[in-house]
Amino acid sequence: MAITVTIVVGNPKPRSRTRIVAETLVQKLLEPGSYDLEVIDLADHTAEIFAWPSDELAALNARVAGSDLAVFASPTYKATYTGLLKAFLDRYPANGLAGVTAIPVHTGGDLTHAMGPTVTLAPLLAELGAIVPGRGFYFVAGQMDRLDELVEAAAAEYAANLARLATVAGSVRS
Amino acid sequence: MAITVTIVVGNPKPRSRTRIVAETLVQKLLEPGSYDLEVIDLADHTAEIFAWPSDELAALNARVAGSDLAVFASPTYKATYTGLLKAFLDRYPANGLAGVTAIPVHTGGDLTHAMGPTVTLAPLLAELGAIVPGRGFYFVAGQMDRLDELVEAAAAEYAANLARLATVAGSVRS
Amino acid sequence: MAITVTIVVGNPKPRSRTRIVAETLVQKLLEPGSYDLEVIDLADHTAEIFAWPSDELAALNARVAGSDLAVFASPTYKATYTGLLKAFLDRYPANGLAGVTAIPVHTGGDLTHAMGPTVTLAPLLAELGAIVPGRGFYFVAGQMDRLDELVEAAAAEYAANLARLATVAGSVRS
Amino acid sequence: MAITVTIVVGNPKPRSRTRIVAETLVQKLLEPGSYDLEVIDLADHTAEIFAWPSDELAALNARVAGSDLAVFASPTYKATYTGLLKAFLDRYPANGLAGVTAIPVHTGGDLTHAMGPTVTLAPLLAELGAIVPGRGFYFVAGQMDRLDELVEAAAAEYAANLARLATVAGSVRS
Repeated sequence: MAITVTIVVGNPKPRSRTRIVAETLVQKLLEPGSYDLEVIDLADHTAEIFAWPSDELAALNARVAGSDLAVFASPTYKATYTGLLKAFLDRYPANGLAGVTAIPVHTGGDLTHAMGPTVTLAPLLAELGAIVPGRGFYFVAGQMDRLDELVEAAAAEYAANLARLATVAGSVRS
Repeated sequence: MAITVTIVVGNPKPRSRTRIVAETLVQKLLEPGSYDLEVIDLADHTAEIFAWPSDELAALNARVAGSDLAVFASPTYKATYTGLLKAFLDRYPANGLAGVTAIPVHTGGDLTHAMGPTVTLAPLLAELGAIVPGRGFYFVAGQMDRLDELVEAAAAEYAANLARLATVAGSVRS
Repeated sequence: MAITVTIVVGNPKPRSRTRIVAETLVQKLLEPGSYDLEVIDLADHTAEIFAWPSDELAALNARVAGSDLAVFASPTYKATYTGLLKAFLDRYPANGLAGVTAIPVHTGGDLTHAMGPTVTLAPLLAELGAIVPGRGFYFVAGQMDRLDELVEAAAAEYAANLARLATVAGSVRS
Repeated sequence: MAITVTIVVGNPKPRSRTRIVAETLVQKLLEPGSYDLEVIDLADHTAEIFAWPSDELAALNARVAGSDLAVFASPTYKATYTGLLKAFLDRYPANGLAGVTAIPVHTGGDLTHAMGPTVTLAPLLAELGAIVPGRGFYFVAGQMDRLDELVEAAAAEYAANLARLATVAGSVRS
């Protein structure tokens, strides 16, 4: 049965390179045909992001929380994820992403903020109950010509990590 | 086949409550008989921790790196893990814990530093290539009378997370 | 001459307790009559926060960047500052708060996220070039009856820190 | 009157480039003759670092806590400060660096871990009660030929920050 996958893009500008990086990561990580993908470009929802309640946002939040895998992708703003992405995540109650496998992705101009997805976005996703299968992925935006190669290396690491976790899962108490 | 499990205790004082918390977590998480456990109490190795090279420490480092699951447990010192635990981890090369499922555990006097294992130790383990299956676990040292109950709740969450990860692992590209 | 002080409140709900905590901190820290205070309640500006350009937001950003002292106050959302506050700070260019003395304040339900202002908001303000004179201040929202006492203790620490910094400033190369 | 300045070097190898970077920073920041400097190279004290009590370490801890300015300099190990530096700081009681102006310095091979001193060492120093006057300073070890230039730029920023803080200090309640 197909797993449910969602990409959440936190760039206030739509159709960004950040989105392309996240889409490529999903393609490289998962078997074609094994998943059902939806992309949520938060740039399309800024008008509603602070509305409360909002049926539109509630539906998006529910989609992500119900996913098996979610990729959260943000450009680097001030060394960390955008306020737009955080505002979306703020709408969840405590533990609102319980059980979702989540991959944090940041894009940035150079390596200066390469630690961002691992030290800022990953802990935020863990706080919400998500499970991050390894380091965060940081992509230098000027390397779009090496996109396939760099994303493949990251995907291979996540794939290996997920396989190893399955080994441990086999010994867990039922 | 039994999985390999290691507990690394970063308390400079041996046989600490921190060690007991970690041992209890392993017992609550895994099926009896399904794993081979070794406990490394770093308090027993302080004389060698800055020696280079050191056969003694190299053997310990190798044991942890070869584990399927490792629990890293530290009392809270200055809001984060101890220097002793960090000195042990510093001996690894880059990516030295690749593929190890790692659970960060801090103990502390009250909730003031409860974020510690999630925002400081978890990113450190991820930097080393380990996979942290959820939040870090923080245990208030004054609650030893509720040890079983509190650790069981945490173990149940890690167990559920590992099961969910196995779902995603099934769709990963081979 | 009066110094310029700004409070930025990151609560999506206006007139919050978080705002009161920040206002009290300024009162306890500074001599009456020695400063000119403006409070920016970001709840009043959510409709414009993702508009680009925006004269309204640009004026607010400029006010804060031109302050001698700015207090950034946020309720704790997912263990850290709100997306609303981050979205406001995202509008600055690199180093946009250069030279501003900045105090990070979080309010929260209990001590679980007490590390937040020190480990998440303070580094963000430093990244923008601001100077944080000590720890972040965390206030447990249920303790409004002890507001004066708790804020006075924090203000006394910031005051002592600022006095000590002046000692060092006297030896700096001109 | 001369201010008291201490450099604490957290490299397990003595006489490191990290030490030279810290020494250069002090020279560029302070007026010659205006300060009394001591350098503590923790590599010289590894045998005692986990001894308790230790007159030798207690004297070093007291020297740093009594300083007006302290520079804490560490090579980057696993994206953050060394275990050796942390073990030294662990010997302090809570708030043990109260009122000390502290500058965090990391050296590293490239920019990948440039966020380290700002997001990991600075919060640790703040937790101990120290005051960090700005961002942490990160130095790429391969740029020793540009040492003077790069350190001068950082020193100028700290100097400007300290001068600005003095402005705010003038309005603080007495």
